[in-house]
Amino acid sequence: MVVALRLPSLTSIFLSPSTSFSRRSSALFQRHPRLRHFSGISAQSTTEKEVSQETEQRVASQKPRVQERVITARSEDFNAWYLDVIANAELADYGPVRGTMVIRPYGYAIWEAIQDYLNVKFKETGHSNMYFPQFIPYSFIEKEASHVEGFSPELALVTIGGGKELEEKLVVRPTSETIVNHMFTQWIHSYRDLPLMVNQWANVTRWEMRTKPFVRTLEFLWQEGHTAHATAEEAEKEALQMIDVYTKFAYEQAAIPVIPGRKSKVETFAGACRTYTIEAMMGDRKALQAGTSHNLGQNFSRAFGTQVFSHTDENGQRQHVWQTSWAISTRFIGGIIMTHGDDAGLMLPPNIAPIQVVIIPIWKKTEEKAGVLDATSSVKEVLSTAGIRVKSDDSDQRTPGWKFNFWEMKGVPLRIEIGPRDVSSGSVVISRRDVPGKQGKVFGISMEPSILVAYVKDKLDEIQSSLLGRAISYRDSNIVDVSSYDELKVAISQGKWARGPWSASDEEELRVKEETGATIRCFPFEQPQGTKTCLMTGNPADEVAIFAKSY
Amino acid sequence: MVVALRLPSLTSIFLSPSTSFSRRSSALFQRHPRLRHFSGISAQSTTEKEVSQETEQRVASQKPRVQERVITARSEDFNAWYLDVIANAELADYGPVRGTMVIRPYGYAIWEAIQDYLNVKFKETGHSNMYFPQFIPYSFIEKEASHVEGFSPELALVTIGGGKELEEKLVVRPTSETIVNHMFTQWIHSYRDLPLMVNQWANVTRWEMRTKPFVRTLEFLWQEGHTAHATAEEAEKEALQMIDVYTKFAYEQAAIPVIPGRKSKVETFAGACRTYTIEAMMGDRKALQAGTSHNLGQNFSRAFGTQVFSHTDENGQRQHVWQTSWAISTRFIGGIIMTHGDDAGLMLPPNIAPIQVVIIPIWKKTEEKAGVLDATSSVKEVLSTAGIRVKSDDSDQRTPGWKFNFWEMKGVPLRIEIGPRDVSSGSVVISRRDVPGKQGKVFGISMEPSILVAYVKDKLDEIQSSLLGRAISYRDSNIVDVSSYDELKVAISQGKWARGPWSASDEEELRVKEETGATIRCFPFEQPQGTKTCLMTGNPADEVAIFAKSY
Repeated sequence: MVVALRLPSLTSIFLSPSTSFSRRSSALFQRHPRLRHFSGISAQSTTEKEVSQETEQRVASQKPRVQERVITARSEDFNAWYLDVIANAELADYGPVRGTMVIRPYGYAIWEAIQDYLNVKFKETGHSNMYFPQFIPYSFIEKEASHVEGFSPELALVTIGGGKELEEKLVVRPTSETIVNHMFTQWIHSYRDLPLMVNQWANVTRWEMRTKPFVRTLEFLWQEGHTAHATAEEAEKEALQMIDVYTKFAYEQAAIPVIPGRKSKVETFAGACRTYTIEAMMGDRKALQAGTSHNLGQNFSRAFGTQVFSHTDENGQRQHVWQTSWAISTRFIGGIIMTHGDDAGLMLPPNIAPIQVVIIPIWKKTEEKAGVLDATSSVKEVLSTAGIRVKSDDSDQRTPGWKFNFWEMKGVPLRIEIGPRDVSSGSVVISRRDVPGKQGKVFGISMEPSILVAYVKDKLDEIQSSLLGRAISYRDSNIVDVSSYDELKVAISQGKWARGPWSASDEEELRVKEETGATIRCFPFEQPQGTKTCLMTGNPADEVAIFAKSY
Repeated sequence: MVVALRLPSLTSIFLSPSTSFSRRSSALFQRHPRLRHFSGISAQSTTEKEVSQETEQRVASQKPRVQERVITARSEDFNAWYLDVIANAELADYGPVRGTMVIRPYGYAIWEAIQDYLNVKFKETGHSNMYFPQFIPYSFIEKEASHVEGFSPELALVTIGGGKELEEKLVVRPTSETIVNHMFTQWIHSYRDLPLMVNQWANVTRWEMRTKPFVRTLEFLWQEGHTAHATAEEAEKEALQMIDVYTKFAYEQAAIPVIPGRKSKVETFAGACRTYTIEAMMGDRKALQAGTSHNLGQNFSRAFGTQVFSHTDENGQRQHVWQTSWAISTRFIGGIIMTHGDDAGLMLPPNIAPIQVVIIPIWKKTEEKAGVLDATSSVKEVLSTAGIRVKSDDSDQRTPGWKFNFWEMKGVPLRIEIGPRDVSSGSVVISRRDVPGKQGKVFGISMEPSILVAYVKDKLDEIQSSLLGRAISYRDSNIVDVSSYDELKVAISQGKWARGPWSASDEEELRVKEETGATIRCFPFEQPQGTKTCLMTGNPADEVAIFAKSY
């Protein structure tokens, strides 16, 4: 079923949210193919792209008032739904170069919410922000053996600068460990210079062939933390601390019940000793690696000669520093969309929603308008003063029904309706985005500031926990404990995650991937008690691993 | 005279600030040549650079405890002083690629203060943040004739991606007007889509040959605002509004008394109809263009076909939108250094200082230590709770005298000293960075929270205005009103700014540049009354222009 959302239609459809969708032919969603072919593998040339965009633009320009937008049902086609939500909620758009993405204001505001939270946590845990150049001499990438192997197929290279061919090609940063170590080597001499703990918010470039908005793009935004420590223990503690910061962020802010754990050797970051990860289950039950923290050991400090005089032996030995790096990117926004969204569109957890409450004034007769708009602006002022992110949609151009659908599609957690009767009774109607129809709608909430603010804050908290609770249930009902490879195969073929004891070889891990499409997402920190035998070999196993198909 | 600041020396130099500097041979500052050759024109290869850095590193590693750092006197050699301040205050460092810069935490914190202020102002004036990809198809740059002429010599080009030669070269964004218009064309159809007002915080790349940290680097950070409007009047109003935001920021936050005005045609941005600028006078009296706002007219909308159905004539004519763009970059940090710094190093205006107050505990006997440190941490807590950015330097490694010099060099506006006698009397000693020696030092300020907080806030405000006042006097005493070309030449040869009536041709403007090295910085908004005759031609002139040498 394809669910239609007629956005700029001027026909007066004042429908309740539960009946606001009409069926329509699936042909219609073909009118927005732009985000669809984003995920294609073909290296579409700019010229082809421009032509197709010009065509679209002409179509749009000929009927600027009757554009229609459509969101495919999530259950029908998860990928099409995802792209429709991104397009219609105006989260992102194509850039002109294949695989690049423009992050539009509403999508960027989610990123700003992520930044605001993490920046505070990073500073509380002793990190400072700074900025490293994005151009890295090609020779740097080659210094750490597994790093070059992992990254060289994905590099964008600058070969011409100021009209001249460069002597050495420059890599557009795919990650910064090499240039960071080049600088650390100049700043770190004594153990007193340690720990050195920095972070940068930056763009990075990886020449990916299969791209998908937010999830995997040629250029993306992220933060990358880089630290250097005097001992292996400190580095390990730091790597674990930062995956914990990410885990808390995911649970408390994004309402995503990620599973934190350790990557298998096969899945470890190119250049790391150990990679910790948070793995999230999307609405289609595929896993999304939503953040990683690497214990780099001495791999980069050896490659770049980052050394200190030993703590204990000042005059003699020098030793290489122990390092970590950790990152969360705009991919996380894709995770939020795919965790909480539904057929009606985006659903945002209140803590990171750019707009937490939208107010829709409703009037029929002209003489009602002034009173309703007055009440709207005073309610808005009250909520805004209380620190709630609130917007009122006062435009004359759209019907209330259109606005209901539009702001639901944009995922705003709470809607307040104010009509003439509400004005007379000094109350408002409040609807929850996460509870559709009448069940989510409460009439007669007093406009009295202290009552209204308390009610709204309470509901926002309730929605925040409810989204998390729902995601936890969904996750847990889709993880199957398996004790044999056959059981694993069944679970994966049903689209679920398989959790089972694992102590087999890298080759066997790769065989699972080849045969089932699933990879080890992590060895979760939370491990069942008792003795375990490897699901593949029957040998003793120390840990269970989680297998899943992933983005 | 070369002023020495012995930083990690362990000799106990417990000196008062006014006597803390010792003379030293000028040979010594040659030990920190790294930032010096940053400004060279030679395209130093990475390999040469690495060798020189390795040499330095070896030198440093051999005596990690006796590194000495030196700040050249500002009056002696302004450029050397500037580079010394940047190195010693740890604001920035070289990147491995010629002309690139690493912005270190203390320098980045100034950038964050700039971002925090401007972000609020941009949002208050109706702009949303978003993000455009940094890779721009080469063909885009060629679409606007004067734009390509202005930028093509400075481009960095990606020609290889994912191991393959690209069909079309990609430009690493030097500015985003072209890609912005490519997207605007897809989003703007009706005048209802206008105004469209966005901003992005991003890195940009310009292949400059003469570089200088912060002031001109191969890659830099900035914000770029981009707006589209229905009418020429609205665009003009927006361009003026944003130069006004920048002007207020410069005066109120950075304490830099910039002169806002209009650029001459010769100096107008490549692709703009009119460029507004804020021009700042540095400590060596050279001008720094510290921010610009462009009225782009319809230049880019014509090149990219960004059109709307006309406001008045819905069914017929389409018209091109009217646009602006405006930017402030990390160059501004260079402006702050060069406006306020003195022989002792950096001097930061309190409103943008990452650390507004540094507390130095002072003790001689071990039995005094605990009491002094207790008082230090409670004073720190009190100030921090009051929203003051405060740091205490409790380390055992350095003497108080060393710390005084260090934090003065870092430009911290206020220093609080707490010794055993202060603890007994419940008071502290407070010194101003901007008033050296005894005049800036006040004894016996009560530790009582309400008194102390009020005193500190008051002093910070006083320093903020004092820095601005001083910069205004300096600026005004170095601008000369001229009425002839001869007078202009004299003023410029004395290193001053020349202000005089101008209505001559572009050719004559270029001749002034060739003969004096000075350019028209702007036609200031503030114009003298009365009739004027052009200083060059004797013809009637509508406006005075300001001529100066510039960065």
